[in-house]
Amino acid sequence: MKARVTITLKNGVLDPQGKAIEGALKGLGFAGVEGARQGKIVDLVLAETDPDKARAEVAAMCEKLLANTVVENYAVEILG
Amino acid sequence: MKARVTITLKNGVLDPQGKAIEGALKGLGFAGVEGARQGKIVDLVLAETDPDKARAEVAAMCEKLLANTVVENYAVEILG
Repeated sequence: MKARVTITLKNGVLDPQGKAIEGALKGLGFAGVEGARQGKIVDLVLAETDPDKARAEVAAMCEKLLANTVVENYAVEILG
Repeated sequence: MKARVTITLKNGVLDPQGKAIEGALKGLGFAGVEGARQGKIVDLVLAETDPDKARAEVAAMCEKLLANTVVENYAVEILG
């Protein structure tokens, strides 16, 4: 079973990497860029075959390792 | 208009960061993890209001800056 975890910075948390991307895009002539925020994804392959159990397992992984829940949000998507 | 770019490594490209995540998850007791690949996302806010034009603009950004198309795939999602 495959799962995708999307980890994004919470609103209000400074994102220097996003700012750098925004600046670089503007420098390349993409004047219509009003904001950029960077995040990350982790694609997992799991032995678990039950979608609900897989979702709970991935949420536990996020809480323990993948996301820093002080400054980051995470979303779990089960891809089947 | 908001857009999300998802950038993932192409199949066959070595992903040491993903391997490290896989190893760390197993070390924490998540024995059911069979694979992990890391990718990144860029959330953009655009002045463009036409979805098709926005999609084309973001694809151009990916080709020029955001993705290394030699080793990475990108997907553009227009969030409206």
